[in-house]
Amino acid sequence: MQIKELIAQMMQGNSRALARLITLLENREYQAAIMKEVSPHTGKAYTLGITGPPGVGKSTLISGLVGHIRRQGLTAGVLCVDPTSPFSGGSLLGDRIRMDEISRDEGVFIRSLATRHNLGGLSPTARQSIKLLDAAGKDMIIVETVGVGQVQWDIKKVADTVLVVLIPGLGDNIQMLKAGMMEIADIFVLNMADREGAQDMLNELQTTLPSFHTAWRPPVVPTVSIRSEGIDTLYGAVLEHRAFLEREGLLQKRRRERDFHLLVEMVHDNLQEEVERRLAEEEDYKEIVDRVKDASLDLYTAADRITEKILDKVSR
Amino acid sequence: MQIKELIAQMMQGNSRALARLITLLENREYQAAIMKEVSPHTGKAYTLGITGPPGVGKSTLISGLVGHIRRQGLTAGVLCVDPTSPFSGGSLLGDRIRMDEISRDEGVFIRSLATRHNLGGLSPTARQSIKLLDAAGKDMIIVETVGVGQVQWDIKKVADTVLVVLIPGLGDNIQMLKAGMMEIADIFVLNMADREGAQDMLNELQTTLPSFHTAWRPPVVPTVSIRSEGIDTLYGAVLEHRAFLEREGLLQKRRRERDFHLLVEMVHDNLQEEVERRLAEEEDYKEIVDRVKDASLDLYTAADRITEKILDKVSR
Repeated sequence: MQIKELIAQMMQGNSRALARLITLLENREYQAAIMKEVSPHTGKAYTLGITGPPGVGKSTLISGLVGHIRRQGLTAGVLCVDPTSPFSGGSLLGDRIRMDEISRDEGVFIRSLATRHNLGGLSPTARQSIKLLDAAGKDMIIVETVGVGQVQWDIKKVADTVLVVLIPGLGDNIQMLKAGMMEIADIFVLNMADREGAQDMLNELQTTLPSFHTAWRPPVVPTVSIRSEGIDTLYGAVLEHRAFLEREGLLQKRRRERDFHLLVEMVHDNLQEEVERRLAEEEDYKEIVDRVKDASLDLYTAADRITEKILDKVSR
Repeated sequence: MQIKELIAQMMQGNSRALARLITLLENREYQAAIMKEVSPHTGKAYTLGITGPPGVGKSTLISGLVGHIRRQGLTAGVLCVDPTSPFSGGSLLGDRIRMDEISRDEGVFIRSLATRHNLGGLSPTARQSIKLLDAAGKDMIIVETVGVGQVQWDIKKVADTVLVVLIPGLGDNIQMLKAGMMEIADIFVLNMADREGAQDMLNELQTTLPSFHTAWRPPVVPTVSIRSEGIDTLYGAVLEHRAFLEREGLLQKRRRERDFHLLVEMVHDNLQEEVERRLAEEEDYKEIVDRVKDASLDLYTAADRITEKILDKVSR
């Protein structure tokens, strides 16, 4: 009852209902109920992923983009995915939303989300939150992640267009990060382009590109987000990439692939939960674990036995 | 037959047999056979994890440590885990072993390994390779990972002692990386300690430490690995940490916990393989996937149905 009401309110544009539903997604029982209800209303929003190392001005850039989107008469949703420390249990970076001027606009919804298993990845909850924003009628959904490690690949799994944000003079130490990001970018943003070394970085990016990309050659858009410079060109590049995807039939194809990956991931999460429950609660599983502990059973035989029990092969 | 022979050769100190067995671990059928055989001979080696951002001189440091270990009359195994690009299929950094002077020593075994799912994590194969080196009689096993994203947590799952390597002047952009690494370090290595800013970095590290650590306070060891300076002090710190773990009963406790995690991970890998096989091959699973594709079934109901089928709840 309550959920159907919340969803109805959300679809009428109620931001508080939307926020409440995102919170409820964390609860696995509500999750299924919400998503089954919401599913038929998804597929209209365009998703923009923004990633890059810490400190390149992603938040300011998003703030500029959201302003631009609003001036086109469109609505926007922003999801920020924070890295969380497994030891402290809290966010290391604190609340990363520094977008005061846009956060009071009713056509904009902003939310910070936790990362998957504290490793910096996008959780199924994050991916389902995107679908909620879609059903809530947001035209453009912006997902911000920190482009380090796993997240930079995850963003490709949710976004129609991926912006990789860099700044001049990032230094040799993160050559590797840049290399990993090279391959996921649909558009490069060279932010703080008024800084020294910007031209060198532009040249460097443009000479590195051809080896990775074929049909779509990612443009490099210089911006100075703090002064809102280059935002219109950047938005134009996003629209161009979208037109490219639609022209090539890639938009629907990629979205279907993403749905399939989400499906597989949800199944794995279900199974993982079940395995953990059985190992903790069920006597015959606990017995196997105990035999590993006292070294009367090796790890590998134990893994096989547990797998077989779960797949119910033993009792057949 | 062949595997038992290889294992016998490996345990007599044959490096080629060891190398061959590590390669065979990639094959899941051989994996179980090898590990069941080898399991009873493990538990004697000490595992040292070395992590840190790219470019801090981890390889040179390892080279120095291996030399030091050899001079104590002990043998060493080194496993380097490289980040691999999912798009290129190959290693971005190339072969990272620049340890010519030690790689011809028969008491030293060095091997590069791929990362888990291309995301930079340690695969079960990497974790099993550590056990192989252990069974092969290596006294000290050094595992090198790039300290970015997921890997920095994974190293804690395999190493008795974790060294986090930093250098002066890493810059503000990787404050976040440093923060994440803070919490996994048993010992900090401040390499290139002859560089400008070394003292500031030492002070910074020492003031940040107390909030994370309790019983064991990680020392900060300055080194200049290129000139082999500080290696003996560093090795001394490793022995001290080992003595601490043994005194507190933590060594065995942590190893048992690590075995349990490996067990759970192997079960998940087994299940994941089975799920992927069924979704690709079995008609009733393919039918569910097709219904998602033509939108006659929502993703969430589909995930539940697949989970139930795998857990065999439907037929009961």
